[in-house]
Amino acid sequence: MFEVIGERINTSRKLVRQAVADRDADYIIDDVKKQQEAGAHYIDVNAGARIGHEMDDMNWLLDTIQPIATVPLALDSPDPAVLEMAYKKVEKTPMVNSISLEKERYDAMMPFLAGKDCRIIALCMDDNGMPTSADDIVGRAFTLIEELGKAGLSEDRVYVDPLIQPISTDVKNGLLVYDAVRTIKTKYPKVHITGGLSNISYGLPERRIVNRTFVSLMVGAGMDSAIMDPLDAKIMATIKTADMLVGNDPFCAGFMKGVRAGAIAS
Amino acid sequence: MFEVIGERINTSRKLVRQAVADRDADYIIDDVKKQQEAGAHYIDVNAGARIGHEMDDMNWLLDTIQPIATVPLALDSPDPAVLEMAYKKVEKTPMVNSISLEKERYDAMMPFLAGKDCRIIALCMDDNGMPTSADDIVGRAFTLIEELGKAGLSEDRVYVDPLIQPISTDVKNGLLVYDAVRTIKTKYPKVHITGGLSNISYGLPERRIVNRTFVSLMVGAGMDSAIMDPLDAKIMATIKTADMLVGNDPFCAGFMKGVRAGAIAS
Repeated sequence: MFEVIGERINTSRKLVRQAVADRDADYIIDDVKKQQEAGAHYIDVNAGARIGHEMDDMNWLLDTIQPIATVPLALDSPDPAVLEMAYKKVEKTPMVNSISLEKERYDAMMPFLAGKDCRIIALCMDDNGMPTSADDIVGRAFTLIEELGKAGLSEDRVYVDPLIQPISTDVKNGLLVYDAVRTIKTKYPKVHITGGLSNISYGLPERRIVNRTFVSLMVGAGMDSAIMDPLDAKIMATIKTADMLVGNDPFCAGFMKGVRAGAIAS
Repeated sequence: MFEVIGERINTSRKLVRQAVADRDADYIIDDVKKQQEAGAHYIDVNAGARIGHEMDDMNWLLDTIQPIATVPLALDSPDPAVLEMAYKKVEKTPMVNSISLEKERYDAMMPFLAGKDCRIIALCMDDNGMPTSADDIVGRAFTLIEELGKAGLSEDRVYVDPLIQPISTDVKNGLLVYDAVRTIKTKYPKVHITGGLSNISYGLPERRIVNRTFVSLMVGAGMDSAIMDPLDAKIMATIKTADMLVGNDPFCAGFMKGVRAGAIAS
């Protein structure tokens, strides 16, 4: 089943940043409720944008969100101290966003992860930067899956992010990720695949049709999660439909429910 | 590049049947022009529904369409005599729709195909009926590709139709075709894959979102053609976008042109 990680609670977004600065709990609560009602499976929480305030802001955001959260949170920070604080606050097994093979990030995250009950987003990034071939993505993913396995995180806890890059900068950027994901899922069928979906359409007009066409393509390859805006109703309808088409919706019941609710329309 | 076979000129459609019975050339010409303007790469012509009139109706349809056809035609008949007549009339290398492994159809079509310059739709059907597994589809496709090759039709002339079946009757019907197409394209990368796209959504509401989500998925697997209604603007936009995402639209030029023309919208 496809899992949507709602990306909206991020202080790099102007209105969220303002709400956090103002300690405007109503704004945050309203946004989280909307994401949950739209079908988000995780709520990502990122308090990184106000330099020097991340610990306080994350603490306040979790105090605000935790009482109304009906789904687990994705704790989005590169700072293990922030994550330690956050991990103690959450009630449901969280997602941690994220680890990579960049030495500094990797070395900071591995001790944090030891013995933790969590899911983890594993970025296919290393100190050479973004991947430039399917082999880059696959090699980094395999290393991350194996190392996280040794640290006690089984395959089904790992959400590989192959790092989707804009099709506008290289027309091969779609196939790059597609082929890599096929290869990763063939070797590790239980691993999840996620990613920042809207990166694919960066630099193009009419981005939403690009995003939803790409997610359909990628569901075929084995992508079963995305970091995205669950309030984009059309892409949510596309995801439900794609999930049905790859056999994840017995008797088309979820699709039919979506149609009756008016959430899925031609 | 994805090729759309426009399915509208078919006497099983009520208005077309009436127009053919009335020899209403304006109706037929108008419909063909609309399909061409919408981006059809082939115009399918099927005159089979008025029993006893197929030869005359096909003859009249071709006389009517040929002068305004800017794209090749798909000659859609099981009758080699009708196809012989039609083949002599067309100016551009036609598609022939279709051959299968059903003994009667196969034995009738093979002599017709000898020495002909055409493309051919190869249905994965045999005397046991519709395929019930990916192996069925793959096995029949391989036989057809090999036999058509011996008859002089190279791989790139063959359009395999895996026979898309409704997801509403079995939730595995999407993956069945998906996996089969991956396997066929791996062994025969030059072969084309086509099919009656709307079959997937038979029995469901909001069929068009199912059709366009499925075509995105299938483009990932290697489907590069469909028998469909080119006047469905949303699916045409999805196909252009999917074709870009698998690397078939250098510099996103076709996508950008579609956006500027108002044909592609979020």
